[in-house]
Amino acid sequence: MEDKTTSLSHCPIARAIDQVGEAWSILILRDALNGLRRFDEFEKNLGIAPNMLTKRLASLVEAGMLGRRQYSQRPPRYEYVLTDKGRDFQPVIMAMLTWGNRHLAPEGAAVLAADLQSGEILDPVVVDRKTGRIITHETTTTVPGPAANERIIARLAKNNALRNPQGETK
Amino acid sequence: MEDKTTSLSHCPIARAIDQVGEAWSILILRDALNGLRRFDEFEKNLGIAPNMLTKRLASLVEAGMLGRRQYSQRPPRYEYVLTDKGRDFQPVIMAMLTWGNRHLAPEGAAVLAADLQSGEILDPVVVDRKTGRIITHETTTTVPGPAANERIIARLAKNNALRNPQGETK
Repeated sequence: MEDKTTSLSHCPIARAIDQVGEAWSILILRDALNGLRRFDEFEKNLGIAPNMLTKRLASLVEAGMLGRRQYSQRPPRYEYVLTDKGRDFQPVIMAMLTWGNRHLAPEGAAVLAADLQSGEILDPVVVDRKTGRIITHETTTTVPGPAANERIIARLAKNNALRNPQGETK
Repeated sequence: MEDKTTSLSHCPIARAIDQVGEAWSILILRDALNGLRRFDEFEKNLGIAPNMLTKRLASLVEAGMLGRRQYSQRPPRYEYVLTDKGRDFQPVIMAMLTWGNRHLAPEGAAVLAADLQSGEILDPVVVDRKTGRIITHETTTTVPGPAANERIIARLAKNNALRNPQGETK
């Protein structure tokens, strides 16, 4: 990932992928958001090899998405708990859940989001916080923010010039 | 990915990752959503090796996220256009953008979402479509849908039993 991080270091999406753009990492976060904490819980639920799990957990701890906490002295045992940064990844998982259910579940949804208290089924959708308007590809673009460098500014200007929704396939 | 797809085949998040859980694929989708279509545009913008780009584009076409369309006869040239399935991935990218700006941009945001018409800056947030309530980890869980098999039902029941928000790190 080093090449991409260097060349695209100002893009928040590229940075996000650099931290968790690995299938196991996202599945571990999914499970952590679902309440799993202990090594053997992740291992059993994911069917992941222990050495790979050790590696991915260490990577998520290093990225500040999970905290490592000792819960047993003898034998020494650790659990992995979400930090704020890890918890804030939940909307990404919710957006993936929605997309997966829409496009990858021809037999119907196997997993749905629900309100923790009421159990009411939720339909996750991305909106603008202020106006509440649904954010779609057709109505949205990306623009340079205050910390944009010249490279990002040039790239986004070029991208916007290319946007031509009429020409896309239906 | 075969092992995971088999063992977690009913989870829409695992399926989503199986289709695009690769850094280049997500960056190509980001660029496609930004209006890029042509091989050399992707190649230049991403700094990706041509053989890797060929492979990832073919994979996204096979997954039904991009369509391949000839735009020149001599020489034969193709462009890659988003399908509905590819366009619908945009909320995932928006959620990643928001998370990246919040947690991976200490110097400030370099890229922001904006309304394509007005240019107004948007603050993407995941809400329940019906109630408009913001979906957070603290208030949300996942439950079996109509197509859940016994394995998913057991896993989600166990996960919900583990949920104990009070114990998480702040």
